[in-house]
Amino acid sequence: MSDIARRFPTNPLLSPQDVRPSCEGLAVHCLLNPGVFRFRGKTWLLLRVAEAPPATDEHVSTVIRTPEGDLEVLKYRRDDPDLDLSDPRVFRYRGEVLLTTLSHLRLASSSDGVHFEPATSPTLEGFGLYETWGIEDCRVTEIEGRFYLTYTAVSPRGIAVGMTSTEDWQEFTRHGNIFPPCNKDCALFPERVSGAYWALHRPASTGIGSHDIWIARSPDLIHWGRHECLLRVRPGRWDSARIGAGASPIRTTAGWLEIYHGADENYRYCLGAVLLDANDPTRVLARSEEPIMEPIAPYEQKGFFGNVVFTNGHVVDGDTVTLYYGASDCVICGATLSIREILGTLGVEGEAI
Amino acid sequence: MSDIARRFPTNPLLSPQDVRPSCEGLAVHCLLNPGVFRFRGKTWLLLRVAEAPPATDEHVSTVIRTPEGDLEVLKYRRDDPDLDLSDPRVFRYRGEVLLTTLSHLRLASSSDGVHFEPATSPTLEGFGLYETWGIEDCRVTEIEGRFYLTYTAVSPRGIAVGMTSTEDWQEFTRHGNIFPPCNKDCALFPERVSGAYWALHRPASTGIGSHDIWIARSPDLIHWGRHECLLRVRPGRWDSARIGAGASPIRTTAGWLEIYHGADENYRYCLGAVLLDANDPTRVLARSEEPIMEPIAPYEQKGFFGNVVFTNGHVVDGDTVTLYYGASDCVICGATLSIREILGTLGVEGEAI
Repeated sequence: MSDIARRFPTNPLLSPQDVRPSCEGLAVHCLLNPGVFRFRGKTWLLLRVAEAPPATDEHVSTVIRTPEGDLEVLKYRRDDPDLDLSDPRVFRYRGEVLLTTLSHLRLASSSDGVHFEPATSPTLEGFGLYETWGIEDCRVTEIEGRFYLTYTAVSPRGIAVGMTSTEDWQEFTRHGNIFPPCNKDCALFPERVSGAYWALHRPASTGIGSHDIWIARSPDLIHWGRHECLLRVRPGRWDSARIGAGASPIRTTAGWLEIYHGADENYRYCLGAVLLDANDPTRVLARSEEPIMEPIAPYEQKGFFGNVVFTNGHVVDGDTVTLYYGASDCVICGATLSIREILGTLGVEGEAI
Repeated sequence: MSDIARRFPTNPLLSPQDVRPSCEGLAVHCLLNPGVFRFRGKTWLLLRVAEAPPATDEHVSTVIRTPEGDLEVLKYRRDDPDLDLSDPRVFRYRGEVLLTTLSHLRLASSSDGVHFEPATSPTLEGFGLYETWGIEDCRVTEIEGRFYLTYTAVSPRGIAVGMTSTEDWQEFTRHGNIFPPCNKDCALFPERVSGAYWALHRPASTGIGSHDIWIARSPDLIHWGRHECLLRVRPGRWDSARIGAGASPIRTTAGWLEIYHGADENYRYCLGAVLLDANDPTRVLARSEEPIMEPIAPYEQKGFFGNVVFTNGHVVDGDTVTLYYGASDCVICGATLSIREILGTLGVEGEAI
């Protein structure tokens, strides 16, 4: 067992019943993969809240948003022979794919980093043409005094990366799609490196190419270029089928430390680490042979979609990184890891800067 | 029949036997989809030349380039039961896909726009990690006195859009991948519009999303953002399965005129037109109901991959646009169309500026 995470004894920290639905007629089915940041002395989660109308014995249903912002419920008879319910995350119907839930983003705050109070209403909801099927898995990165939110924007037009920024969490500026489909798992570096802004992202290909982590650079965080393939999936291993960046990389004396997720062909999601050169983040210095965290707790093994630990948010205090993570695509949990110890598993000495 | 193209009586203009292989042991299998530009009083094609080792009765083979630039021949027994040869463009072997040919780019010049003299050696070959399986379908756009080459970069890492620029066609500057996988068919606008550079591109998704034309903007042609879906495929029509931009949009009094390709589920490739707002190219003003050009000539219907007309290069003289195009993924042809007439099929009056 290579797992070096110390899970909070109070896990899960937040469950669907802790969050009020965004409107009447919808139920919160899952809480997932929060962005994390510190602001005004508190620790904040930007939760992904996945909702749908409650299912009945006869019907299953989901909800989408129109480009104008209205909700539209879609209902299927359970016994419809054209309906495939084998994956809890999607309805497959006559060659079409539809998400079973609609996600929005909602803040939750805490004074101790353990007990979180979710807001009673959504903080950010899907907006316009590219987010009609929701917004998901938001990374929050503070850069030069402003918070940049990079999230998965889902619509029938594809899965893209949208970006919004704010200084005060009251007023938000939309920057459009920073990466076109099919892309997700975008983590910004917290500062300029060698004169440029940098992002990790995960384009997905079929046929030629795989679900690898790419890196890009930008003069302004809005326009991106010089795309390079940074880290590839590894056949036969725990990160064989798909990998993606977690939250913003952590600056250490040994280089940039990124915690990423990897899944195998059975969709078992683990976490690993990769170390990038301090001045040239396209250079991979070391990579986890074994996961640093695996779905081993009961709440990580059973839930909406079992055998998943997935993180895209953390805070760093000295040597401690506190990961907030989604377990089984259902509940929000916390765990701490030692940065020295993570670097040690990579065969490297170093500490957070 | 909605075809309004006047084909050159001398079509095809160039065939594989007109081009010398890039090295001993390779044969030119196809000429495809040239970029087109005017330079020093001549018309130039930047041909896509697709090569492979000659097949034998017992074997088929292809060739790839190593990241270091060496060629590597891959050979399969024709009777290998794991080998699927049903698509002439790819070998499918035990779940892997490999191109049957390796493409490079080669100049050909003409004083009259009809008789072209191909260079005796490649002008640009795949370079580095992202082009080991070749470079394809290059658009050439002259912007502010410099030629920008946007092409499909193919490697096991995926299909991306690479960009190279030159002023004199002797020295080239590589700008890396401007769009990550899976993307192709990138056409730059020939000038800034409302303060930004613009590109049409074609991300491809599976599952959620389709093979649509997107538009992006840039401050410097290298970094791109504000990705929007411009034009979608139309189920049940000639452009139902995939669409992609042709060459650079043409400035007209009615707006930006773009000639694009559309294919249906049978991979029949036709050309259509779309008109974009002069100052806001994200606004579609009109779109072809029927193709303006279809594969109807014998050389467009039979070849390496039949029933294909595909263009990514043209020159404009007054009301005449001369399209150079690939026919049946095999030979290079030419045709002229009236810009007024194209606009007329869109229900719009106007002329080239």
